[in-house]
Amino acid sequence: MPTLPSDECLARLARARHGVLATVHERRGVDAVPVVFALSDRRLILPVDTVKPKATTALQRLANIDADPSACLLVDGWDEDWSRLWWVRASGRARRLDGDELAPAIAALATRYGPYRRPGAVVAALELSIDELRGWSAS
Amino acid sequence: MPTLPSDECLARLARARHGVLATVHERRGVDAVPVVFALSDRRLILPVDTVKPKATTALQRLANIDADPSACLLVDGWDEDWSRLWWVRASGRARRLDGDELAPAIAALATRYGPYRRPGAVVAALELSIDELRGWSAS
Repeated sequence: MPTLPSDECLARLARARHGVLATVHERRGVDAVPVVFALSDRRLILPVDTVKPKATTALQRLANIDADPSACLLVDGWDEDWSRLWWVRASGRARRLDGDELAPAIAALATRYGPYRRPGAVVAALELSIDELRGWSAS
Repeated sequence: MPTLPSDECLARLARARHGVLATVHERRGVDAVPVVFALSDRRLILPVDTVKPKATTALQRLANIDADPSACLLVDGWDEDWSRLWWVRASGRARRLDGDELAPAIAALATRYGPYRRPGAVVAALELSIDELRGWSAS
């Protein structure tokens, strides 16, 4: 099986512009939602923002993680030519950042995403500490 | 919140070429993997194939679903222009298809994906019955 080595997994995570966050949902079992993120060491930083339209910043993903911190983030490369497919999955535990942790997290996100440079654009952030990295490439 | 109506969610699911399947993992809590699929009524058909390179067709997603059928499939539209973002999530319960159920499932997949027209390309299939549909669009 053409698995990707750990450093290649991290490199592809670092380059990816968006991914899918999966968390545990009390009733539905699992949830999945697209996310943007920044990679810092082996930690993924995920924003709760006021940029993309939403009814509330009390997001379901926050409630899920408060109840069960298990989470994973998947990035993948889709192509109709299946010899070009690949994916990387980072699994671990997520938690809310608060207090002094928030400013550097927002700075890391603002470096990657222009809309986050506006003050107040990111109102909270999650950190996913990577315990397991798995990657696959078709060729 | 700019949620999408149910028929629009189904239409976007039907058009999407690939998605991310999230399942419950006994130890990691959640798993996520990219998948191709076909939509038939309110059921999603997902293949286990011999086309994309893999060590075994005894996939982790099958073991996950045997232990806990909770699953969801997410499709999304990524764009650096965030006013064009959207996603649709279909949540429900998944199970393996077998016996007489397999042939029509493979036929539905082969209609959408050329590589599946070769005999033996799909060796098993999962069905995700959609209990809940949720969709979001930035504009």
